[in-house]
Amino acid sequence: MSPNDLDVLKKSSNAAGATLVRVDKNPVDLAWVDRPAEPLSPVIPYPIEFAGVSSEDKRNEIAETLSAQNADAAIITSPSSIAWLFNIRGGDVMCTPLPLGRAIIHANGSADLFIDPRKVTDDLRQHLGNGVSLHDLPSLEVALSKLEGKAVSLDPATASAWFFEQLENAGADILRAQDPCAIPKACKNRVEIKNTQQAHLRDGAALTRFLHWLATAAQTGEVTEIDAAIKLETLRHETGQLNDLSFETISGAGPNGAVVHYRVSTATNRKLDRGSLFLVDSGAQYLDGTTDVTRTVHIGDASKEMAERYTLVLKGHIALSTARFPAGTTGTHLDILARHALWQAGLDYEHGTGHGVGVYLGVHEGPQRIAKPWNATPLRPGMIVSNEPGYYKTGEYGIRIENLQFVTEAEAISGGEIPMLGFQNITFAPLDRTLMRTELLTQAELDWVNKYHREVWENIGPRLDGDEKDWLETVCATL
Amino acid sequence: MSPNDLDVLKKSSNAAGATLVRVDKNPVDLAWVDRPAEPLSPVIPYPIEFAGVSSEDKRNEIAETLSAQNADAAIITSPSSIAWLFNIRGGDVMCTPLPLGRAIIHANGSADLFIDPRKVTDDLRQHLGNGVSLHDLPSLEVALSKLEGKAVSLDPATASAWFFEQLENAGADILRAQDPCAIPKACKNRVEIKNTQQAHLRDGAALTRFLHWLATAAQTGEVTEIDAAIKLETLRHETGQLNDLSFETISGAGPNGAVVHYRVSTATNRKLDRGSLFLVDSGAQYLDGTTDVTRTVHIGDASKEMAERYTLVLKGHIALSTARFPAGTTGTHLDILARHALWQAGLDYEHGTGHGVGVYLGVHEGPQRIAKPWNATPLRPGMIVSNEPGYYKTGEYGIRIENLQFVTEAEAISGGEIPMLGFQNITFAPLDRTLMRTELLTQAELDWVNKYHREVWENIGPRLDGDEKDWLETVCATL
Repeated sequence: MSPNDLDVLKKSSNAAGATLVRVDKNPVDLAWVDRPAEPLSPVIPYPIEFAGVSSEDKRNEIAETLSAQNADAAIITSPSSIAWLFNIRGGDVMCTPLPLGRAIIHANGSADLFIDPRKVTDDLRQHLGNGVSLHDLPSLEVALSKLEGKAVSLDPATASAWFFEQLENAGADILRAQDPCAIPKACKNRVEIKNTQQAHLRDGAALTRFLHWLATAAQTGEVTEIDAAIKLETLRHETGQLNDLSFETISGAGPNGAVVHYRVSTATNRKLDRGSLFLVDSGAQYLDGTTDVTRTVHIGDASKEMAERYTLVLKGHIALSTARFPAGTTGTHLDILARHALWQAGLDYEHGTGHGVGVYLGVHEGPQRIAKPWNATPLRPGMIVSNEPGYYKTGEYGIRIENLQFVTEAEAISGGEIPMLGFQNITFAPLDRTLMRTELLTQAELDWVNKYHREVWENIGPRLDGDEKDWLETVCATL
Repeated sequence: MSPNDLDVLKKSSNAAGATLVRVDKNPVDLAWVDRPAEPLSPVIPYPIEFAGVSSEDKRNEIAETLSAQNADAAIITSPSSIAWLFNIRGGDVMCTPLPLGRAIIHANGSADLFIDPRKVTDDLRQHLGNGVSLHDLPSLEVALSKLEGKAVSLDPATASAWFFEQLENAGADILRAQDPCAIPKACKNRVEIKNTQQAHLRDGAALTRFLHWLATAAQTGEVTEIDAAIKLETLRHETGQLNDLSFETISGAGPNGAVVHYRVSTATNRKLDRGSLFLVDSGAQYLDGTTDVTRTVHIGDASKEMAERYTLVLKGHIALSTARFPAGTTGTHLDILARHALWQAGLDYEHGTGHGVGVYLGVHEGPQRIAKPWNATPLRPGMIVSNEPGYYKTGEYGIRIENLQFVTEAEAISGGEIPMLGFQNITFAPLDRTLMRTELLTQAELDWVNKYHREVWENIGPRLDGDEKDWLETVCATL
């Protein structure tokens, strides 16, 4: 628990008349008798052709940040920051190639990396080089105790309170600051962007093959949610490059589509009935990128209401996708663009609109976020965010349209005075045009749909053959 | 300085390597040798037919809030909260009928009011009744010292740090909470809304007469900003009910219109040249309401660019004015609606979009605000906010369109599922239709303009005669 989380808990405990009491042993650990051993997946180098920037260059950049903050060192506790900083990946977390570990980076660019030695290979040692000292995890406490008198940067939003206590006991001068890797990691470099675009095209082709299957073989009413999830994973597997899913597929038919974080089980498994909507939110981990995409399609005929609401969600997706905004704008400022059409119709959705996404890292990644609760991180070029408005009618159906997009410097606007930022889409797979009520779209929105489908056809078409290709051409034709 | 302000100052001082040092005497006071005496305007009762709710009922409502917070008392340091709570007004602040003073309200609904006895009349004593004890200001320190062992609510955002020190020294248990009057004061009751609507119609008629003058006699190119400000004040004075301006009129011709907080002086006084824009932001204090309105008009012919940008500002004004939003939405969520059309054109304005407004109180009133910096106060029915997007071309011209609107429960929306909030406009005066490029407006926006002008004509028309009335009919005709 971070000091920030602890503060919230302290306040609410106090308000309820309770007092937080420190215990020496975690009661969950004591009760968890059949706990499996910690994972020991080897930590592997993430090659420069994927990372784009060497770990040494990244460490020098962070060292400059630390010097500017008058910090002697920073404690890096976030596994994704460690993966990014050292250009390494692991297999310790399901659906996310994270190596568990901790690190100290010093203001001269050298670093101490604390990971289980059983995960360390010679390859890794060679990759890390002389600037990085490897230690086992128990050494961390000693290393922290040696920081007496040093100015040490530590993030109160993400580091656990234990680190603060250790540094206080050591007599270090704690500098409460954001994890110095957070922003550089979020702002993808050119290589990462180029690679993740490739991963998205590969993934988009697999998803398009799945959508073709949904539009044809899966229209019988006999296919189940589990069948569909397996079919989609199989098609992604057929790319030959799938390392993992980026999260367990949300395969929601009819009323299950209205359960925002639905996970199918044999107990809940429904058939994709005719006359219903099917929502599929899924993603994959490829060495060159992490994907996350949602499509909603109809099985049989959709009702007028379903199509109306799909169109309202689409209007929100388009408004966010086409936004121009000045530097300093955060996701909280933009969130309403995705909701406005729904709000004007008396509707809303009870989840955020967009989250950050890593490159062969976490499918949910901060610090940027597009949502109602205040997020203070301005959107910057290179940040990837999802754009996923939805609508959920409990007990009936769910709708969500999700593409990933990265923040770009927008093209110059004639007569404009302020350099604006915008988004560039990286997810290509057709949207269900039969769910669009075109009379509810403005000409500009209709133009967006046609342009998007033209791009889908141009990018995905060459990756398909036969019926799948013919089908894509049809569903991408101008509306 | 409030503890919150002090925290910001401490942090920035520390960051700059400086340390805040406490001094016993305010050095400004020591240096200010010709300081005028403090104002001694009498404090007058604000009658129930204007306040809508008696002070006793308000105090009982606040007492319930305190009981719910387990507070024994609250210190009220904001003069506008005191004016609202006791239904009193004063004349101690320019353009704002505030009585300077402090108060303690107890959880039984009784209160201590600390004001200079020279401002107290028999009328006031009778109005305050037995539940309110009057004291002079020097007694405040003693009263605070007697709060030992009491749970006392105090607002760290608005109360000065002195109050916190006094209560700590007294051994009181300080409850850091928002001023309990802040939200009830911001959410106007039915009587206040009805009254302020009347004040706005009266004010709108005066402003419309001024706009007629601008469109006719003031088109010569020889009228100055000061002439215009005096003309407008004279017309407001002719209502027979003007108590004061609500702020010094912003009368900005040509490039002076681009200075957001411009105040005309003899040194800067410009003529309203032909071929230029003129921006006038002004307001009045009437016993039944406080107004604040901005209109931008052209003198002679406007350029195509001026009209285009006026139209973009208008689109933002309309988008905010017509917004529907669920409970919990704050002004920060809505701010982008007023900027979106400008952002898409590469433009923006460097000020907030909307501020709260009192009823015969401050023309700027919190806690709600529509602006980019995070404001955590959800908009609630009865809150008045301004809607004032703008555009400023330095050295050339400024554009701002401002109406006041209050938050309402929106009409039921067919097919809608969530009760939505919306806005109801209370400012009526024509917008310069010759600055509108109708080809840039959607049909819905054009409908809004026509509906607004129909309402202006219906509400203001009966208050005018002769040429002024004829002119209004012309400029309110359907576009």
